[in-house]
Amino acid sequence: MHDLPMATLLVTLAAILLAAKLLGDFAERIGQPAVLGELVAGVLLGPSLFGLIPADGALADVLHVVAELGVILLLFEIGLETDLREMFRVGPAALSVAAVGIAAPFLLGYAYWIGRGPGVPLDATVMAGIFIGATLTATSVGITARVLADLDRLRSKEASIILGAALIDDVLGLVILTVVTGIAAGGTVSPLGVLRVLAIGVGFLVAALVLGRFLAPRLFQLAERMRVRGVLVAAAVAVAFGLAGLAELAGSAQILGAFAAGLILSGTNQFDTIERELKPVVSIFAPVFFVVVGASVNLRLLDPSRPGAGQLLLLTGVLAVLAVVGKVIAGWAAPWERYRRLVVGVGMVPRGEVGLIFANIGLRSGIITDAVFSALLLVVMISTFVAPPALKALFAREELDAAP
Amino acid sequence: MHDLPMATLLVTLAAILLAAKLLGDFAERIGQPAVLGELVAGVLLGPSLFGLIPADGALADVLHVVAELGVILLLFEIGLETDLREMFRVGPAALSVAAVGIAAPFLLGYAYWIGRGPGVPLDATVMAGIFIGATLTATSVGITARVLADLDRLRSKEASIILGAALIDDVLGLVILTVVTGIAAGGTVSPLGVLRVLAIGVGFLVAALVLGRFLAPRLFQLAERMRVRGVLVAAAVAVAFGLAGLAELAGSAQILGAFAAGLILSGTNQFDTIERELKPVVSIFAPVFFVVVGASVNLRLLDPSRPGAGQLLLLTGVLAVLAVVGKVIAGWAAPWERYRRLVVGVGMVPRGEVGLIFANIGLRSGIITDAVFSALLLVVMISTFVAPPALKALFAREELDAAP
Repeated sequence: MHDLPMATLLVTLAAILLAAKLLGDFAERIGQPAVLGELVAGVLLGPSLFGLIPADGALADVLHVVAELGVILLLFEIGLETDLREMFRVGPAALSVAAVGIAAPFLLGYAYWIGRGPGVPLDATVMAGIFIGATLTATSVGITARVLADLDRLRSKEASIILGAALIDDVLGLVILTVVTGIAAGGTVSPLGVLRVLAIGVGFLVAALVLGRFLAPRLFQLAERMRVRGVLVAAAVAVAFGLAGLAELAGSAQILGAFAAGLILSGTNQFDTIERELKPVVSIFAPVFFVVVGASVNLRLLDPSRPGAGQLLLLTGVLAVLAVVGKVIAGWAAPWERYRRLVVGVGMVPRGEVGLIFANIGLRSGIITDAVFSALLLVVMISTFVAPPALKALFAREELDAAP
Repeated sequence: MHDLPMATLLVTLAAILLAAKLLGDFAERIGQPAVLGELVAGVLLGPSLFGLIPADGALADVLHVVAELGVILLLFEIGLETDLREMFRVGPAALSVAAVGIAAPFLLGYAYWIGRGPGVPLDATVMAGIFIGATLTATSVGITARVLADLDRLRSKEASIILGAALIDDVLGLVILTVVTGIAAGGTVSPLGVLRVLAIGVGFLVAALVLGRFLAPRLFQLAERMRVRGVLVAAAVAVAFGLAGLAELAGSAQILGAFAAGLILSGTNQFDTIERELKPVVSIFAPVFFVVVGASVNLRLLDPSRPGAGQLLLLTGVLAVLAVVGKVIAGWAAPWERYRRLVVGVGMVPRGEVGLIFANIGLRSGIITDAVFSALLLVVMISTFVAPPALKALFAREELDAAP
């Protein structure tokens, strides 16, 4: 019927689910968040080892679609469990953290590149510096949110700041995307275009919240009177998918729409049923996202026998440190608030898809080389693997301090 | 990242879910099974009306994948709720019903075509007759199972016979597929090849049940001791996807594997948790299958102003009657058992994907014309739409009879 052998997809999905739960459980047993095990499961199943998850082709495409549905469902669930009033209260703090968390890694990466630090090739260009800086900016809200959920910390003040800042990052990420796409195309970047992307992101969120908070209770009042099976959870997922799609069609980020859908539905009377029935769905689909993210890791890049591997590893190491330092600095960006700055900074460290999209545009337009692209891929990986255990340790220390 | 605009997929999925639940609820309110509403939702959203679900392209491909995951999850759930001992008890009856239910519609369709009945074009060939007969054979177990579930009749003796016979139909459908593919390729059909397909289907089911009933309780004992969230339902879905994929890789039908997975897991101690957590997942994904099936209906074929529309409608009408009559006859195929024969016959009426696959092979190989293909498509549609209300009425009459 279509190009993809359905049987291969089914067996791959089965392997992904089993590996994710097995390694997720193992991670928890050794005191780490389950998401770390799922990422490792992805590395194992990915192209560099077992090769069950290919890097491209029809199977990879469909797995990416399932993974995206997974992260949308996850952000929807996170939105459901988020306290909207708390989000508003920490809004200014989240905005400062997001702004510094984009500016600091960008400037650090750019300066290191332009300043020809150790590991930077001799033919380094300003344009490449912009792409490298950009790749270091956007926090992956998916990873961070999962870690906070795994640690049962979604309702802490730090979590609200991190989630708020990470979502603002996603909107700002689209602004940066507009800029780097303009640069890659060789054109100029209009300040008006930048403002437009910003306005759309903010406008969408405000419109969704205002309209949604008014409409959703009425919609679900109606749904509750229906007799067909599973109507509440199906309607909730429809709202999540719909807002995610509309957000992107409007020119903003999918996960912003999904998160907004969660915030909206957390105000309905049917909240408990929706949350309970949504849980198994998220338990099945969210791990697919993290396994697919893990599978994008190519361990062969680390092979020391490759030519230029030494310089590449040096560059990778330095950029990884800068990526971490830049976000940790951001943790101190809201001095008027009382919160645990190191937790917020570390919570902002994981980078993901958005950074990889920037790097990919740079690679395709010939602005950055294969080697630099590989280094950036490794930096994104490292940031993703470093944050979960670090956050876990920081929260554990807090409990130790609180003990009598 | 890939060809498909994710935003379009999300909005389409949202529309499919909302329309399915809305029309499913409406169907129940007017006394029909919910699945009928979902099929109508598909017709409305499909190419012939709103055009939200395209007939082909990247979006159609992904929707088909989601739909197939939906029907696999549904058959898995049906398997979970099926009484294995009852299935074994009615096995011989199911086998007879399946055999007659394939032979009768095939012979009726073939004879009408070869005998140049009214509506049959003058250039009718024997080869085309074989394809027409084949298209009328295979019952769509998905539709029938959903109707039985909607009517809460899955545990009746009639349901066991229908489900058993429909699943045997699926294995025999693969045998017919081997035959018609051989004919379409112009080659000869070896009796050995036919036997091989049969042996694989039976062998797979037996192996899965024997091994599964032994391994599954141990696997789920292990899973229950895990701490990660949703491990039971995720492992269950992994078993369903895995067996569905393996069934196809072994040369049999996906839904046979999914159903076997359900039968196997119905014997575990964790059955209650699995069934409860699976419900919302099925409530979200199964309707996508039925909406996509409904969307394959092309209402434009019915336009009376089309040239030759009269003859086409006549042929369609006759073949539809033969398709119904052939399966109703099959209801009388097990005279040694006590059961309601009309219910079983009508339960076997819905045709679906498998018949359409045969018709499609005939069309592509030039053995049947566009017009005949359209007629077959309409026959499959009619059979699908006729059975749910008829079954509902038959069960209602039984209740009336049973009333004091």
